[in-house]
Amino acid sequence: MRPKIVVVGAGFGGIVAARLFAKEDVDVTLVDRHNFHLFQPLLYQVSSAILDTAEIAFPTRAFFRDNKNVEFFMAKATGVDQERNVLLTNHGEVPYDYLVLAAGATTNFFGMESVAKHAYGMKTLQEAVAIRNHFLHMFERANKSKDAEERKRMLTFVVVGGGPTGIEEAGALSEVINIQKKEFHNLDFSEVSLYLIEATDKLLPMMSDDLREYTLKVLQKKGVKVMLSTQVTDYDGKELSLKDGGKIPTETVIWAAGVKAVSFIANCGAEVDRAGRVIVDENLRVKGAKNVFAIGDCANFCHGTEHPLPTVAPVAYQGAAVAHRNVMRLIKGDNDLEVFHYKDLGAMATIGRGEAVVGKSPFNPEFKGFLAWCAWMFVHLFRLAGTHMKLTISLKWAWNLISGVRLGRLIGNIKLDE
Amino acid sequence: MRPKIVVVGAGFGGIVAARLFAKEDVDVTLVDRHNFHLFQPLLYQVSSAILDTAEIAFPTRAFFRDNKNVEFFMAKATGVDQERNVLLTNHGEVPYDYLVLAAGATTNFFGMESVAKHAYGMKTLQEAVAIRNHFLHMFERANKSKDAEERKRMLTFVVVGGGPTGIEEAGALSEVINIQKKEFHNLDFSEVSLYLIEATDKLLPMMSDDLREYTLKVLQKKGVKVMLSTQVTDYDGKELSLKDGGKIPTETVIWAAGVKAVSFIANCGAEVDRAGRVIVDENLRVKGAKNVFAIGDCANFCHGTEHPLPTVAPVAYQGAAVAHRNVMRLIKGDNDLEVFHYKDLGAMATIGRGEAVVGKSPFNPEFKGFLAWCAWMFVHLFRLAGTHMKLTISLKWAWNLISGVRLGRLIGNIKLDE
Repeated sequence: MRPKIVVVGAGFGGIVAARLFAKEDVDVTLVDRHNFHLFQPLLYQVSSAILDTAEIAFPTRAFFRDNKNVEFFMAKATGVDQERNVLLTNHGEVPYDYLVLAAGATTNFFGMESVAKHAYGMKTLQEAVAIRNHFLHMFERANKSKDAEERKRMLTFVVVGGGPTGIEEAGALSEVINIQKKEFHNLDFSEVSLYLIEATDKLLPMMSDDLREYTLKVLQKKGVKVMLSTQVTDYDGKELSLKDGGKIPTETVIWAAGVKAVSFIANCGAEVDRAGRVIVDENLRVKGAKNVFAIGDCANFCHGTEHPLPTVAPVAYQGAAVAHRNVMRLIKGDNDLEVFHYKDLGAMATIGRGEAVVGKSPFNPEFKGFLAWCAWMFVHLFRLAGTHMKLTISLKWAWNLISGVRLGRLIGNIKLDE
Repeated sequence: MRPKIVVVGAGFGGIVAARLFAKEDVDVTLVDRHNFHLFQPLLYQVSSAILDTAEIAFPTRAFFRDNKNVEFFMAKATGVDQERNVLLTNHGEVPYDYLVLAAGATTNFFGMESVAKHAYGMKTLQEAVAIRNHFLHMFERANKSKDAEERKRMLTFVVVGGGPTGIEEAGALSEVINIQKKEFHNLDFSEVSLYLIEATDKLLPMMSDDLREYTLKVLQKKGVKVMLSTQVTDYDGKELSLKDGGKIPTETVIWAAGVKAVSFIANCGAEVDRAGRVIVDENLRVKGAKNVFAIGDCANFCHGTEHPLPTVAPVAYQGAAVAHRNVMRLIKGDNDLEVFHYKDLGAMATIGRGEAVVGKSPFNPEFKGFLAWCAWMFVHLFRLAGTHMKLTISLKWAWNLISGVRLGRLIGNIKLDE
């Protein structure tokens, strides 16, 4: 019997891990609740009608067409029974010899149930499509409304969170508003507001002061009302409440203010941190476990670092390589495991069409503007799965840069009584 | 006060009509329940994961960016009050001086409620996406099922209707099955069946015997089980019942066997035929009305023809041109209206990758095979809205022809308890 490796999650970490194990003399089962690998960094482009769903999601099975030893099992993981070495799912148990948890993160509303209920998260393809549908629908509904107060509430959009996701979303939505302006001949666009709200006193905390100021200026030039040091306390779907007592009437709140590990990680029989991440040792092995590893957004690795590692793709795929080698060592009876050393590749964020910031890294000084935007495009295209995706996305980005159209502006889920 | 023209429906007929009126000294309101113009002939390509939604749907407002006299009103029409000259919608009344009904067709289940409830229609973007999600999900679910009977039912797919839509859908799905075969390493594909069921004794009734035989052969070569002279009587979601007493256990029935006018046409205060189409005179004016015209799939025009005109795009846009000229004549006080003469441009259908049939027309003899497929592509690309859509679709079709991949194979609506 060949050793059986189970990988949970088909994100950046899980796909890399499964591809590495696919080349070994082992059986691999990759478990995910969706049948596609999602390119999460471009979710904001789906929500803002630049790209279509199939352009940022790649069928998971297509990665393993030539790997007969890899089986994809579409199911939602619900827990791990470490005693019996089985993964629990909503479609039954999956036994393993070695388990790699790469289950990723979900939106963290920090316990605010009203916000969780009424705001949009930005972690899944369905959420991005829901934002697109809702955002566009607000213009159509406002266009028919004769109630000024209602109309203004429908035309006020709030993005919460000043990290890369929030910046990118706010920048992209401001561009959609400009396109809408050309096509709603009878709507008063002075009634439209787009806010970016950040709890701390800075945008993009990982960047230098210079890049942060630049980002702020670009956003403001695009008409985004940036509110720093502003905390959200409540949202009932009509009115957003702030800690300082302020109120913003709005029907659209997009929450990009925090993530936590997916909830199933808490049921893996191991210690988790406040953000639900499982604690791993310096070899990426789950604390107290023999044959369970965890990588990426669902793992808390803080050996030689002040904080746990950031929730970015390079942490996941660098971790996947180390977890793969450590599992293979254990299979060969070698208990001398490799220590994970994260190589920080720097951070980048787009602010809009032709505008981005790239932080300092071992390979480059920081830079900004059009050149940074080209670098951002290049890095993301390079990472995308499949030549065809790279081609169609290049074409769409080029088209978008030149003509500024957004052909994805479809409201795809109309309830006909609305 | 300029005359106010209201056009209902943003399909082929409605868009052409609205664009023609946009150039006149009139005010135009275009009403549709969706915010996009849908290129219906390519719906089957969305349902079979070739194209993505934004590639066959074009934002309606984008057509009228430069026409300040055109207002788009997103609403579902519910009736017409001809006494008061108002269109009734779920968002209130829209007054008109002249009304053009171009509301299109919906699926006709011929009164079989069980079929209507459990089968998939193929008229809207949402239906095409639902078919794609469901079809792909059946493979994932069968892959996890240990019950042979359930598995076979999940892997049996039935398309009903031997017209162009049914042929195209069956051909395209057979190709998806072949791709799935390469990626489900542990599924027995001898359990997969794909049926095409037609009530009459022939496929593609508008084509010659030669093209029909060719179509049948190509479908059979692709593994499609074609059943002619077979009528559906009932479907409970698990088992399809046939008139001859036969039963087909299946969880997937796609209904492409008939259309009727959208139901609102019955509330327009005018006579309708059995398929719900409003009767129009030879000038395309609604029978008994002075200032209401109807074109395309929602109109019954049978002047000098044996049957009402077919439900195809050329009938709609040729009608739009005549309705436009006739309304303009009435506005100028000229009651001598133009008679509509439909120019039949022939019919075509794809059977799959590189295979199509093109019927005889005033411009060409009939032909088939790869050349017909190229002609089909050319005609459809030519008719698509927007250069960017033409470009990306050309790229996808070329890619699909060469590599045979289907990158749109995403299950986008997973309920997590399934």
